[in-house]
Amino acid sequence: MRICILGADGYLGWSLSLYLLSKGYEIFGIDTGDRRRWVREVGGESLLPIKSMIDREGLIRKLGGTFTSGNVMNYSSISRDIKNFQPDTIVHLAEMPSAPYSMMNNAKAVYTHNNNVIGTLNVLYAMKEYCPDAHLVKLGTMGEYGTPNIAITEGPIEVEYKGRKSMLPFPKQANSWYHLTKVHDTNNIQFACKTWDLKSTDIMQGVVYGTKIPEMGNDERLYTRFDYDQCFGTVINRFCTQAIARHPITLYGTGGQKRGFLPLKDSMQCLTLAIDNPPDEGEYRILNQFEEVYTLKDLAYMVWCKAQELGYSTEIINIPNPRTEVENHYYKPDHQKLFDLGYEPTIDMEREIEGMLKDLEPYRDRINPKVIMPDITWR
Amino acid sequence: MRICILGADGYLGWSLSLYLLSKGYEIFGIDTGDRRRWVREVGGESLLPIKSMIDREGLIRKLGGTFTSGNVMNYSSISRDIKNFQPDTIVHLAEMPSAPYSMMNNAKAVYTHNNNVIGTLNVLYAMKEYCPDAHLVKLGTMGEYGTPNIAITEGPIEVEYKGRKSMLPFPKQANSWYHLTKVHDTNNIQFACKTWDLKSTDIMQGVVYGTKIPEMGNDERLYTRFDYDQCFGTVINRFCTQAIARHPITLYGTGGQKRGFLPLKDSMQCLTLAIDNPPDEGEYRILNQFEEVYTLKDLAYMVWCKAQELGYSTEIINIPNPRTEVENHYYKPDHQKLFDLGYEPTIDMEREIEGMLKDLEPYRDRINPKVIMPDITWR
Repeated sequence: MRICILGADGYLGWSLSLYLLSKGYEIFGIDTGDRRRWVREVGGESLLPIKSMIDREGLIRKLGGTFTSGNVMNYSSISRDIKNFQPDTIVHLAEMPSAPYSMMNNAKAVYTHNNNVIGTLNVLYAMKEYCPDAHLVKLGTMGEYGTPNIAITEGPIEVEYKGRKSMLPFPKQANSWYHLTKVHDTNNIQFACKTWDLKSTDIMQGVVYGTKIPEMGNDERLYTRFDYDQCFGTVINRFCTQAIARHPITLYGTGGQKRGFLPLKDSMQCLTLAIDNPPDEGEYRILNQFEEVYTLKDLAYMVWCKAQELGYSTEIINIPNPRTEVENHYYKPDHQKLFDLGYEPTIDMEREIEGMLKDLEPYRDRINPKVIMPDITWR
Repeated sequence: MRICILGADGYLGWSLSLYLLSKGYEIFGIDTGDRRRWVREVGGESLLPIKSMIDREGLIRKLGGTFTSGNVMNYSSISRDIKNFQPDTIVHLAEMPSAPYSMMNNAKAVYTHNNNVIGTLNVLYAMKEYCPDAHLVKLGTMGEYGTPNIAITEGPIEVEYKGRKSMLPFPKQANSWYHLTKVHDTNNIQFACKTWDLKSTDIMQGVVYGTKIPEMGNDERLYTRFDYDQCFGTVINRFCTQAIARHPITLYGTGGQKRGFLPLKDSMQCLTLAIDNPPDEGEYRILNQFEEVYTLKDLAYMVWCKAQELGYSTEIINIPNPRTEVENHYYKPDHQKLFDLGYEPTIDMEREIEGMLKDLEPYRDRINPKVIMPDITWR
């Protein structure tokens, strides 16, 4: 199967490239390298050392794939690549993935809209023109839903009003410009499927954590990036870095916020299940992709306990929440479809966290303590 | 009251400037003149002759207002204007308003997203920075809802799932890139109200028709534009032009499509009611702004009858629908809030149409028959 991976240099994109190559898929990876630039811009750097784009190009070539420079913002370039490669599946991970980055100021909000919404629009047009039968696997986020006071469906919801019923898209209430761009994408993709008979799986993914996947072994050249700064570090990755740095594990507000989580290797498994099981022509399919829901304070405690066991002295602190978000809320999203497709989740989160701490410890000196605490606020 | 009108050179914007000036409001109108360019680009031209931007600047100055060049796409320019004028209300009409134009190709889809979504984002940031207490009256469209198989609420809808209930935004199913950009705006504005305590009225407006408002009298210098081409001509305006041109009145498909409609002068009345009755701080308010629902074929028949009476020989034809849309559907949107604020609708649509035909007849020679029939399709 021919897979085009947009955003192949990112945390998920690089991992997915290696994962799919190891399973015999034909891979054509494209990236701008922008993620490296964004992270540097906010003072961060991948805690695990990663190879340059050029080195990665050579590594992927040795494994039988392609890794090349390209930009979804440039329609003529992206459409030419897609036309030439003729993918069966396009995995679109080429978006700016940080809520705080998008909330810094007007220029960043505009940039995020451009990069994400226009980028996806270009991909949809390139598919319509050059591979209308391909399957678009698009990375959305569980954050598109916000925290409604009811369970969240995995796909349309039946709505009743004045005695009539209709199946309608689940109403979204995203809580940052970044998350909103994903909602805009979702609306646009759904329209393209309906109007142009494209097929797409829109992955509402929970928060991913983890240092590596088994396919990387202990080969440092194959490591994927691992960010811990306020913008690009996801929460468990940030907690683990704080523990390693003997910095307080930092909760935003009470830490009562609930989110769905899954380890990096489960994300690979789930994306592959989506790839292997495409929807029908014209079908727009939503998958809520996570293993289980946790509160942030439970996770902080889990990291703290594991750090204690390993002999790191740290503590948990609460700071004023830089985001405007509900900290105590109902949260029960449906997430059955991936299990139906065969998803076998990693149940043991504590062991995962232990592995992460051990993976990160050798790189402790690379941590820049200045980028750990948040100073970007929602207001 | 100090009103900043973004898009003051457009069909609604110019009319609203004159309407509000006649009622004693302080007006600061801004426009790029892009609407003139877009219409020319598709071969059209305003059927009613309109004055140049420079002439309009002078006309508005004589009436005590300001009309100036500016672009919502340029953040530093728009934020400086807003900072200097310190409006009580910003009426945002500065969007690219054509569904077919947005569906022409990738470049136009991208352009529409940029102009509309980024433009509105810039307005929101300028308000946050320089006039957080102002009221944003934003022009959305009834087309944001699409045609769900239930009545449409005017604001949130109660959704029940797995035994719990929640008030959520009404799910949108827009049917062109243009309509989707309005949905994206709606989501963004709602977030800005919640996060920055801005106040906004999002007007889900039906299809507007009409040649002029009483405030223009018979003074040709004050006329607002009147478009009839496939992109920028709204349906009743197009039907009337076809009748005047002795061209068949053209229905897309069966003409069973139902939409909400209101005359231009009612749009002025409703926008002013929204301006005069701002929501509370942090409140995001939706108004479904139209007078009554009609099927397109009923309207075609109404125009045909009136044309017969006036002695124009014409016919009604059905052509393959260039859009992908449902042609026979349930449609019953709530629209009570404006009536509660005091809206007194123009009931007599037939007389309105008669007036339009009489207003347009003297300009019959200006019609370019080549731009009447649609050739932009959704697929």
